[in-house]
Order: sequence, then C-alpha cells, then structure tokens
Amino acid sequence: MQKTEQWGIFELSLKGKEEGNPFVDVHLGAQFQFQNRKVKVEGFYDGDGIFRLRFMPDRVGVWSYTSQSNRKELDGVTGQFECVPATEGNHGPVHVKDRLHFTYEDGTPFVPFGTTCYAWTHQEKELEEQTLQTLAHSPFNKLRMCVFPKHYAYNQNEPLYNPFEGSLEEGWDFSRFQPKFFRHLEERIIDLMKLGIEADLILFHPYDRWGYSSMGKEANQRYLRYIVSRLASFRNVWWSFANEYDLMKQFPMSDWDDYFRLVQEKDPFQHLRSIHNCRLFYDYGKPWVTHCSIQSSDLTKVNEWLETYQKPVIVDECRYEGNISRYWGNIAACEMVYRIWEGTVRGGYVGHGETFVDPKDILWWAKGGTLHGQSPERISFLRGIMEEAPRDLEPVWIGKDTRAAIGKENRYFLAYYGISQSVYKDLCLPEGRKYKMDVIDTWDMTISPALGIFEGNCRVPLPGKQYIALRIREV
Amino acid sequence: MQKTEQWGIFELSLKGKEEGNPFVDVHLGAQFQFQNRKVKVEGFYDGDGIFRLRFMPDRVGVWSYTSQSNRKELDGVTGQFECVPATEGNHGPVHVKDRLHFTYEDGTPFVPFGTTCYAWTHQEKELEEQTLQTLAHSPFNKLRMCVFPKHYAYNQNEPLYNPFEGSLEEGWDFSRFQPKFFRHLEERIIDLMKLGIEADLILFHPYDRWGYSSMGKEANQRYLRYIVSRLASFRNVWWSFANEYDLMKQFPMSDWDDYFRLVQEKDPFQHLRSIHNCRLFYDYGKPWVTHCSIQSSDLTKVNEWLETYQKPVIVDECRYEGNISRYWGNIAACEMVYRIWEGTVRGGYVGHGETFVDPKDILWWAKGGTLHGQSPERISFLRGIMEEAPRDLEPVWIGKDTRAAIGKENRYFLAYYGISQSVYKDLCLPEGRKYKMDVIDTWDMTISPALGIFEGNCRVPLPGKQYIALRIREV
Repeated sequence: MQKTEQWGIFELSLKGKEEGNPFVDVHLGAQFQFQNRKVKVEGFYDGDGIFRLRFMPDRVGVWSYTSQSNRKELDGVTGQFECVPATEGNHGPVHVKDRLHFTYEDGTPFVPFGTTCYAWTHQEKELEEQTLQTLAHSPFNKLRMCVFPKHYAYNQNEPLYNPFEGSLEEGWDFSRFQPKFFRHLEERIIDLMKLGIEADLILFHPYDRWGYSSMGKEANQRYLRYIVSRLASFRNVWWSFANEYDLMKQFPMSDWDDYFRLVQEKDPFQHLRSIHNCRLFYDYGKPWVTHCSIQSSDLTKVNEWLETYQKPVIVDECRYEGNISRYWGNIAACEMVYRIWEGTVRGGYVGHGETFVDPKDILWWAKGGTLHGQSPERISFLRGIMEEAPRDLEPVWIGKDTRAAIGKENRYFLAYYGISQSVYKDLCLPEGRKYKMDVIDTWDMTISPALGIFEGNCRVPLPGKQYIALRIREV
Repeated sequence: MQKTEQWGIFELSLKGKEEGNPFVDVHLGAQFQFQNRKVKVEGFYDGDGIFRLRFMPDRVGVWSYTSQSNRKELDGVTGQFECVPATEGNHGPVHVKDRLHFTYEDGTPFVPFGTTCYAWTHQEKELEEQTLQTLAHSPFNKLRMCVFPKHYAYNQNEPLYNPFEGSLEEGWDFSRFQPKFFRHLEERIIDLMKLGIEADLILFHPYDRWGYSSMGKEANQRYLRYIVSRLASFRNVWWSFANEYDLMKQFPMSDWDDYFRLVQEKDPFQHLRSIHNCRLFYDYGKPWVTHCSIQSSDLTKVNEWLETYQKPVIVDECRYEGNISRYWGNIAACEMVYRIWEGTVRGGYVGHGETFVDPKDILWWAKGGTLHGQSPERISFLRGIMEEAPRDLEPVWIGKDTRAAIGKENRYFLAYYGISQSVYKDLCLPEGRKYKMDVIDTWDMTISPALGIFEGNCRVPLPGKQYIALRIREV
C-alpha cells in the first residue's frame, strides 16, 4: 500500500482526455475517509491529459478514497493509502491557538518571524536557489510571496513562467492555466517546507502589467479554486488574499469577502487566511479571517489591535531595512530591530524586509538573493529569546513606566524600552513572589543578569541607553 | 518729562489707602492717549498703600494719561510721558504674522526655539541665577514657566513666595495677593527679557498641593485680571492658559473659553494666547487662540495641524531628553533633535526639555539649573540654519520621497529625512530653475555642498545615514 507521512502530500494521478477545455469542463473531486471521518477535496487538471487529486492526511492509519467526476474515466476510482507518522521536522500545518497565538498541528509552538520576497519565484534558477540558501541560514520561518509576478520599481524583468495560456502581446486565456507555472511554484513551496518555512502566499496584488489584477470575478474564482485544489495539501501554505488590497479599487469589498468564503469552503485543511492592507484595514473581525496581516509602522498599536480583533496580530510590513529613496524602504537596522521588538513585546509578530540599492536591482524584498542588513542576526537573537520563553506570552502591566511587556502567569515577563534611555525603571511586580532579572541589550545582543532579587514595587538599574529589554523570571 | 522706551514699561505709582481689601474694593484704570488713539489699562494694588498703573507704549512720541477710580485720591490723575525709540535688542512683543509665523512688532522675524523650566522661579536665588546663566548661553528664545509652584515628582520643595495671603496649613485668602510673589516673578521675567527670551507664562496647571488649581471661577478671574494688570506691559510675556488643561477636570471647557475671553478683553497689548494639552487638544480654531501649543510626540502631524487650524503650530512638548524612568522623560538626544527637525521642517516650531537624573533632584524641565544633554548644541545649529534662511518658510512638495520640506517661492527649500538612511533621493524640483544643494548632517552638525547643479526631476546622492537634511537654494 502506498505510504504517505502525516501532513505529507498524497497524490492520485488519473489519465483523462484533453478534449475541450479540461480546466473548465471537467469536474473532479474525491472523498477521503479515515474511520468514520470523511473529507472532500477537489482535483485539478495538470496538462497532458493528467488529472490529479491531492490530500494531506492528518491521522496515522489507513485512509480510503473514492473519486467523483462528470467524466466516466475519472469517476468512481477508489483506493487506499497508509498514513505513517510524520518524519522529523514535520510538525503539520500552523493553526491559531488560544485566540492570539499560533501552533503547529502537532502542538509545537509556532512563533512567526517572517520576511518578504514578493517575486522570488519569478527569477532565474540561480537566483532562486541563492534565495533558498540565504533563507536556510536566516532566522526566518515565514515568507511572504506572490503567486503572480510583480511589476514595480526594481521589478521590471519578465517572469520565468506564465500562469495562463497566451502572451502579454496577444492576451491571456484566463480559463486555461499553464501547469508548468504552478509546478514551479509548488517546487519552491516544497523547498521552503524542507527549510521549515511557512509560505504566506499572496493570491492577488496590484503591481501588475499582465492583467492578473483585473481578470474579473469569474476568472478570479476559477483561479482560487485551481490554486486551492493544487496547494491546499501543502502543509506550509497560508492564504494571503492580497498584498495592499486597498489599492485594488477594481475589487469591491464584497468580492474580497466572497473570495475568503470560497477558499474557506474549498480548503479541506483550513489553512490560515488573512489579507494585507496598504492604508485601510480590512475588517479582521470577519469570521473567515484567522489572523491580522497588517502594514503599519506604529507598533505601539499592537495592544489595541489584539484587543479589537481578538486574533493573532502579524505586522508583516513595518517598512524595510534599506537605503533606497522611497520612504518605506530606507529605515536603518536599529529602527527595524526596534520595531520588531516593540511589536513582539506587545504580543504581536512583526515581519522583516530589506531594500538595499543593488547594481543589478536585486533587492531582497522583491527578488530575494542575499541579505545585506544588520537586522537579521538581531532577529535571530530575539527568536532565541522567544524560543526559550514560556509559550503564548500575552500583554501584561508591570508598572506605568513600562509600556511594552508580555508575560505568563506571573512567573515570566519580557519588557522592552525601545528608544528610552532610562538609567532605571520603577516596576510594579506581583507581590509575594521573587524575581531575578536579565538586562538585554537588543542591539549589542548581550544578556546581563541584574544584581539582586526583585519583588513588588522595585527599582531596576538600567544601562541608560536605547534598545534595552528586561527579562524577569520567578526565582 | 519722564521717558520710556518704545515697548518698555511706563509705570505710574499712586498712594492710596490700605483700608478694607484694596485688591477687591478699589477699581483703578487709566486711559493712555497718543494723538487720537486711546488705550485703556487696569491698575493693581501692590501693597503698602501703593497702587500702580503700567503701560507699554508702542509709538514714539508724547503720550498722555488720565486715571479713573472709585477712590477719589486715585481718580483723575493726569500726566504725560515721552516714548523714545527702542534700545538695541528691544524688538517689541511677538505677534502672529501671515497666518503661520511669528514676528516681533518691529518686523524682526521671531522663530521660536523654546525650552521648559516649569518651576524655576520657585527655587533658591542661586539656582534661579544659574538657570539664567545657562539660558544666556543656550539656543533658547522662549521659556515655558508656571506662575504657580509645582507639586510633582522631583518637585517637592516649598516655593520661595506664596501668591496669596495665608498659609498651606491655615488656608489661603484668594482675594488677597502677596505682591512680593508677583514682584519676584516680574524680576525674573525682566531677566528673561534682557536675554531676549519670551516668557510663555502658564497661568494654571494641575500639579498642585496648595489649592491654586481649585480656587473657583471668581477667584480665577480675579487672579487673571490681577496678573494681566501687572504683566501685560511686559513685552516678552505670552499667556499660556494652562499646562495639560485636560487633566484639570474641575475646569469645565466653557470656563477655559471665559478665561481666554477675559484676558483677550483686558490685555491692551494682545499678547499671544494659547493652552497646552496632555492628551485632548483644546480647539485651537477658537478665535481667541493665537497659536497652537501642543503636546505630542508625533511630529509628522504638524502639516495636518497647520492645515486644520491655520495658525502657527508650536509643539512645546514632544517628550524630554533625559534618563528618568517615566516614558516622557527618557528620550535620547538623537531622538530629541530628530523630533525638533521633523516638526520644524514641516512648518512648525518644536520645544526642548530635559530630565536627567540628578543627585539633588534638580531637573532642568522643572527647576532649571544647568543643561546636561547633547541636544541644545544641535538646536543651536538648527537655529543658525533657520536664521540664515528666508523668513516664513511653509510646507512644500518636492517629490513623493520627501515627506518633510519647507520652502519659499521656489528659491529655497529645506528638506529633512529623519530616520531614513537613503543613499539617494529622487526629487521633483520646479522646472526651468537651477539649484545648488547642501547636505546637512543634523547630528554631526556639518554642511557639505553636493556636487553639481540640480534641476527638475533629479537624483541627489546622500550619505546613507540617519538624520540628514538637504538645503536647496536657487543659483
């Protein structure tokens, strides 16, 4: 019997006919069954007369399936496969846990440390592989990336593959996908999966010269069903409905709602769903949104957003470390690291991006390549601290002079003082408990124990410089 | 004939009677006349049977006066004095000019570079004199200071003098002023006048253990009339109705309006009038407000405030350079200087303050003393640049990558890039004109000419570090 690991991809290939438009004319689905539990998936046409059904089993044991189709040769195909335990490094897909946090399905905590390479899968092979190499040695475990190629400053090259049949000159047939395009995308998502990186997949975006941002609602829905049928069984996929959705004036708000609901309905595995703004937030309170995906450079608002939406807050764009002319792409490493700490220590998850001027116009934020900045090593330092901490930290109050603090059950606190250069802080810690403290220099990446044991209302000496954090642990 | 210089203080002392309560029972006023122009002022009781009338003449030549009173011995006193030209350094009081700017009455531009020493006139003589010494060698030309003493962290000492008769223990008689208190205040305002410093006089504030913030409306109005009659003839006085007015819940908004109108009615010289917020702005659009006096750490909003209120915008509290525990008193010098540049290059005027931990609790922002920070010399550098610039610069647009810029008539621009570390900026300068540029490092205080002549859409190389400004002048 065929074996597929838990949260791996089981794939069934069926030979069909190429006649007509198989992308549109053929309906194919399957029901997968484990004991009394039944899960429906949709299949897709992969060119050359081949139809496929993909499935991500979440229980170890024997699964059976039966196909359904409006084509006789694809209908009623049955079979079984065995789901075996996940191999090392496979923790399953990421879900929301306890309102504000993330977890892999196997219970391993997932603390997002994201970065952005919008168009990295539309570059030459060497560059794409360099991007993967860079990611392998980076602190990042989530990558924002577009399905479609990108047309924007520093992004003028033609993509490797096109998602639809046709050409830029003669127009595209939005009812006929080019499987090559999607197979390439899938390979790259698998590459990320091997590195333990979640693919935060951007389904639409406004930076377009090909017409993919104005295909019309029917074509958009067909595209969404196609991509869900291909990719929902990839455990590291997240659905990001758009980058800067509010710049796509051609999409009425109700269409966005419809696209969310469509994917929610079609995705058997309920991958995470969100949408990214330029200025105006989508209402993250809507029930089909699993988490916030925010562009903002004001990280002090994270508490307010947590309170408002009662969902995890990812600020995946707070400007980029770099030195280009545009205001969003020229913050210094100290500012990038400051924003990431500020948002993190208010209970959010903050993403990185990088835009350094490059002689070949290879800017990380768009094309990938290599990293040049000074923030990634410091993000790595923060990630280490978060991984050592109790999981699922939430905002706490430990005195009016500490505006950013998270903690857990009065036994652990992490406070951050940002641009403040205080020589001491007055804290109000819980009474009747004793704490030791570490002074963390988030820029120099040092951790120094503070002398003494602290309790209740107390004064902690600080080094009188910017970018200091305090780690407070019960003795 | 007695001589008084233009915008100097002419004072008439009259001997009256001490019987009853001369602060309340005696009404004294005078009409001053120059040619056909008549100006009314109110007099005040200065203790020991002495009543005074003060006047600030604004025209050179012979002025005459006649007193009016409900007391025979004070009524109908007439006389003349000669107003002679102002001596060096006396430019008259400051007024608003062309909506968004300030000018001395003699036409000299006034660009406010303020600082704050709330309670400096309530300290020991030596400390007060040290404060004056420090100010004499500082870049500051405006000082925020309270009439009443202040009760707050780092402010626990009793004041030198009390404004009312009575005592803290036995209560105050708010209908009887202590002239000694006001004479001391006046001496200090004259000391500031000699240094060319405007006294931005805070009339009420919430930080109080004496009861001066809850005297009731009648006593408040009596106090306002008294202080106007004493101080309106001091050319360097500004009326600031409150510090953090919105923390004084005992004052309904309509009372603030009434106090503004009272002072507007009684002040013959129409000194500048504003009020300072903690969180909630007073409506600076009200007709009796001459300029905004804002507490905010978001200087990017200056453009919006200028647009909204159509009045000069002074952000006189954007946090303080220092290292105390409280979040408002521990910003680094680079942050203080950044905020001051950001607000200035958006068309506003931004104030300084300083709160360094001190073994004797002498913090500049409250008691004065000496300055310890690194921002004042950089404020001095900025002041030099502003004084060299054409006067009355207003916000301009010179390309979407430049968010803070002011200029004049397409012949001068000053742009500021704050925390951006761009290696170049793309500018859109007016077509058909040629410009030379200076790259200003606002932290290192260097000015380096950029190579070449620039025009229209152009790219200017920058040093790729934070806190850079560009000065652009037509060739």
